[in-house]
Amino acid sequence: MMCAVTAPTIVRADEVLLRPLLTSICGTDYHVYSWDAWSAARVRPPRIMGHEFVAEVVDVGSDVRALRVGDLVSGESHRVCGVCQQCRTGEGHVCAQTRIFGVDIDGCFAETVCGPEASLWRNPSDMPPDVACIQDPLGNAVHAVMAGDVAGRSFAILGCGPIGLMAIAVARACGASYVVATDTRSYRLDLARQMGADVVLDATECDVVEAIGDTHPNGVDVVLEMSGAPSAIQAAFNVARRGGRVSLMGIPSRPVELDVAESMVMKGLDIRCIVGRRLYGTWATMSALLGSGRLNIAPVITHRLPWTDFAHGMDLMGRGLCGKVVLEMD
Amino acid sequence: MMCAVTAPTIVRADEVLLRPLLTSICGTDYHVYSWDAWSAARVRPPRIMGHEFVAEVVDVGSDVRALRVGDLVSGESHRVCGVCQQCRTGEGHVCAQTRIFGVDIDGCFAETVCGPEASLWRNPSDMPPDVACIQDPLGNAVHAVMAGDVAGRSFAILGCGPIGLMAIAVARACGASYVVATDTRSYRLDLARQMGADVVLDATECDVVEAIGDTHPNGVDVVLEMSGAPSAIQAAFNVARRGGRVSLMGIPSRPVELDVAESMVMKGLDIRCIVGRRLYGTWATMSALLGSGRLNIAPVITHRLPWTDFAHGMDLMGRGLCGKVVLEMD
Amino acid sequence: MMCAVTAPTIVRADEVLLRPLLTSICGTDYHVYSWDAWSAARVRPPRIMGHEFVAEVVDVGSDVRALRVGDLVSGESHRVCGVCQQCRTGEGHVCAQTRIFGVDIDGCFAETVCGPEASLWRNPSDMPPDVACIQDPLGNAVHAVMAGDVAGRSFAILGCGPIGLMAIAVARACGASYVVATDTRSYRLDLARQMGADVVLDATECDVVEAIGDTHPNGVDVVLEMSGAPSAIQAAFNVARRGGRVSLMGIPSRPVELDVAESMVMKGLDIRCIVGRRLYGTWATMSALLGSGRLNIAPVITHRLPWTDFAHGMDLMGRGLCGKVVLEMD
Amino acid sequence: MMCAVTAPTIVRADEVLLRPLLTSICGTDYHVYSWDAWSAARVRPPRIMGHEFVAEVVDVGSDVRALRVGDLVSGESHRVCGVCQQCRTGEGHVCAQTRIFGVDIDGCFAETVCGPEASLWRNPSDMPPDVACIQDPLGNAVHAVMAGDVAGRSFAILGCGPIGLMAIAVARACGASYVVATDTRSYRLDLARQMGADVVLDATECDVVEAIGDTHPNGVDVVLEMSGAPSAIQAAFNVARRGGRVSLMGIPSRPVELDVAESMVMKGLDIRCIVGRRLYGTWATMSALLGSGRLNIAPVITHRLPWTDFAHGMDLMGRGLCGKVVLEMD
Repeated sequence: MMCAVTAPTIVRADEVLLRPLLTSICGTDYHVYSWDAWSAARVRPPRIMGHEFVAEVVDVGSDVRALRVGDLVSGESHRVCGVCQQCRTGEGHVCAQTRIFGVDIDGCFAETVCGPEASLWRNPSDMPPDVACIQDPLGNAVHAVMAGDVAGRSFAILGCGPIGLMAIAVARACGASYVVATDTRSYRLDLARQMGADVVLDATECDVVEAIGDTHPNGVDVVLEMSGAPSAIQAAFNVARRGGRVSLMGIPSRPVELDVAESMVMKGLDIRCIVGRRLYGTWATMSALLGSGRLNIAPVITHRLPWTDFAHGMDLMGRGLCGKVVLEMD
Repeated sequence: MMCAVTAPTIVRADEVLLRPLLTSICGTDYHVYSWDAWSAARVRPPRIMGHEFVAEVVDVGSDVRALRVGDLVSGESHRVCGVCQQCRTGEGHVCAQTRIFGVDIDGCFAETVCGPEASLWRNPSDMPPDVACIQDPLGNAVHAVMAGDVAGRSFAILGCGPIGLMAIAVARACGASYVVATDTRSYRLDLARQMGADVVLDATECDVVEAIGDTHPNGVDVVLEMSGAPSAIQAAFNVARRGGRVSLMGIPSRPVELDVAESMVMKGLDIRCIVGRRLYGTWATMSALLGSGRLNIAPVITHRLPWTDFAHGMDLMGRGLCGKVVLEMD
Repeated sequence: MMCAVTAPTIVRADEVLLRPLLTSICGTDYHVYSWDAWSAARVRPPRIMGHEFVAEVVDVGSDVRALRVGDLVSGESHRVCGVCQQCRTGEGHVCAQTRIFGVDIDGCFAETVCGPEASLWRNPSDMPPDVACIQDPLGNAVHAVMAGDVAGRSFAILGCGPIGLMAIAVARACGASYVVATDTRSYRLDLARQMGADVVLDATECDVVEAIGDTHPNGVDVVLEMSGAPSAIQAAFNVARRGGRVSLMGIPSRPVELDVAESMVMKGLDIRCIVGRRLYGTWATMSALLGSGRLNIAPVITHRLPWTDFAHGMDLMGRGLCGKVVLEMD
Repeated sequence: MMCAVTAPTIVRADEVLLRPLLTSICGTDYHVYSWDAWSAARVRPPRIMGHEFVAEVVDVGSDVRALRVGDLVSGESHRVCGVCQQCRTGEGHVCAQTRIFGVDIDGCFAETVCGPEASLWRNPSDMPPDVACIQDPLGNAVHAVMAGDVAGRSFAILGCGPIGLMAIAVARACGASYVVATDTRSYRLDLARQMGADVVLDATECDVVEAIGDTHPNGVDVVLEMSGAPSAIQAAFNVARRGGRVSLMGIPSRPVELDVAESMVMKGLDIRCIVGRRLYGTWATMSALLGSGRLNIAPVITHRLPWTDFAHGMDLMGRGLCGKVVLEMD
């Protein structure tokens, strides 16, 4: 799937041609690689996978306004329509016509990529390329953390995949007063500590709701549900304090039974469902946090492989023995 | 239950003694009157019921600051602690120590009532007493409607009990561009029209999700779930547009199975759980809306009975053949 | 200035060719027509004036996505760059590269107009054309009113030009509890009453600060400064209540001396400087308010003239004897 | 002025008797000590000065609910009425009936102090007392910084008195991407560096607007005006980017001429006037930031003197050769 039969070229006047320098592997890519039920239902092969990248601009269409050949850019994986009510009113991240780059259209695990200027973000020239490469998933983390107040708030982050791990660092960088992180794998809990978690909890060894209640009997201010596990979604509502916030980002594979009365309504929670990143407010914020050195996400990048070791990267993903796996494209 | 064995008197320096002029019956009162499972578990008799009232101040404690004998006041049913984190940071409506007036402590179906000044709200002297009487539940409606943007937004209000009915009028007064209201009883749907609903849907005669989808294929901007019915809670998430808001206020009597992935997370919804009223921002707003004549909730008051017809009022409540029932206390 | 020597044609792939049906005269147009100091410094003749219009789509470029021939559209007067930080983060209304349609580039007082799809807004087919025509200035009013809470708030609107007049109607439609409007011309104060002001004050006959203080000794919740008169800007800060909001929209022609200590800082005011309209959240909201009939701005349209009476319209503008003047373009 | 003729005692049931352990000197105290025009007009001697303290609870009134003898508390200097519209709707910091502790009523430069429980904040038992002591002014800094978005935003902080200095640390702790601080005294600019400023500018050696423009040609995202100097207030509006925020906290001693048109309205600024602290949301946030160690304000405490060296402390204040001066009360 990594070879494009024909190299893409600029067709529309607003398009930009790119040469990826680094790419990285998302959980979505692993789903497609594994050809699970979701992928079989959604993806129409042949399809070039991959949506996380840093690339060099190699050509620009006649209507491209800001980007120049030689710029280093990253890309937003949500290709939105640009003309619907949501797109025109600052909510493009929930555009109903969204096509996912590398899922619904050809992606970045390729020698060249073509896309509209509006879907690209120029990086500062001194940004480390591997950090620039993983901004699309970092954007999910920033979006989830910043969907409400952060400074001086206590956080519980349920699920330490790469996005949950980066959310730990984001919350810390923005003044969260306490971060407890949970997962079921010790490898990822070790990374959680490196990202700045004050406390980590192994959900295979303790009851997360009880353990958080021990230190925070009234609950935490903010819960980020990043796992998608039904039990964690239920726990999210139980460990949030009255009047607190729950950001839901994990995608459960089946309906979840919730105690709507006691754990949601009567507690007066604010629940923010997080999909994608704000276009492009989230990008601007994360670029400023990264560029200023206030936010350091380097520890989440655990592997850097030549693209020819793609299968090895996928294997690491499958066994949960990695944070982010970055691929060198040349 | 309506006779207080001993009349209350001012004990603490911040208390106010009141003589109720009018009271009204809340669904909660009906639960207690019916002595259902919730009431049997929660209420410790003997207990004077009732929490909706308009009353005259007949005496004030030595530390009372603003209220004077002769003032007409209404009361907040949530007696909050005043000293917890929530109470001190503008979120008293979710105080964990809340005692409900007329449920956990003696209420207003009585000749005299005593309470702290901080739980009372002075009414303009020219406010119609029956309107002043029902501000506590009106506050729920105002809180639910105004938990996000209103003007120019389309609303679906699921459940036309008195609070749902008042929410229709509130949404209209604040510039909602469209209001569809649903219920299962034609009596209440007739009232919904009088309160200003553009469209009413009888959930016994149509599929609410389909019917709303016919006029709003992308969903409505805001859904207020005021029924507590599990099927309506599920519908709420289905009829909200991508990026829309769902205010959950109805209290289901059992856990609810929700399609968290597709109908919540992937749609990027904002979900606001509504309990009580903001103390006392909601009171200030509703007082201004009522006092200026911008908001008219008179049609929801369908019955005005002498207090000796209390049992008749309860019977009307049980059969759903009323909006608000107001009782004359003298 | 009303004849284009050569008719515009579609050059870029994202452009749309339009035939204006109605246009209307803005104060800015009067400035240019009068060739005052501001115009002489800013405008480079030959220039086609005019930026308020409703038009029919007559042709579309190859990359136009949503608009179709025959659609009725109105246009945003701020042609923004689309690629700067502000444009990409939902603040395009303050884009530093903004060119004003009809000022910096050719405008709509012409037989045909060409512009990018991104600067156009499709109107519902049943919207009255004269109302559709004046949405650009209505957007200023909506932006100014909705820059904070509206429902249940008392408003003072200083200056009853067309935007101030429309702001009265917008505030009322969105639940403002009280609106006092001020101006120096009785013609416009009469219109203010028709737009829904509760009270009007003639600033040539009373001291506005005193008169508002008589009814609101603690000040009003919200002040909209729409006149640009230095004395009104000073008054705005004086009549706002402690903790209130002041939306500044009027453009004074010289620096203004302000009592920053007492009338601003010590009162804890929120001051929102209003320029243009949010792109395109304001358009979506006003379209919904107009389309639903919740907002009626018809009284502000006092004259409808054939375009050949353009000079008469300008004369009315100069003498302040009009609300909005609409021109029929065929 | 430091000796109370008669020691205060508990009079009202909601009062608490305190023994100050540490106090600190505010600029306001220096004004009173110097008996300048403001003081002569405002203060009615004899008056015990001082409003910044950490104290031990030594007695509680019969209606005190949460505080206990032995608790360590700090105090809010704004004694608000508790019953006005602002107090009841979460805006007590702008209560018109506010009396300043140590200015309008006797303060804390005394052996014992008495005040209502509602004006006190219990400190964690492990909070360093000198840090606990200076929370009232820290609250101004937190209020000013957090009156809008912080994380990923560039800040200019004009004026490095103790509140400005603490604002630097607060902005940094909450993720500000860049902080430039200005003052006219090298002593304070040195402290600004210690508090975390990325760049400091001496306004006696450069043109602040130009210097900030050199690094930020489009302006900074947020400006905090903490000096009250008219030239700095003008500069604040000039260095803010289009669509940026200006928090005004400094109190100028005379009216200020502002370019309302170009530097405010046309830039679409949000201007937040900052007085006091939010009651008590700001206290909760700062307590969490301090308690967690995310915020370190220790460098601002440059002197710790026995209370008998009070005059020396005042002398340091007058010469600007200090940050915060803390007094040991026993």
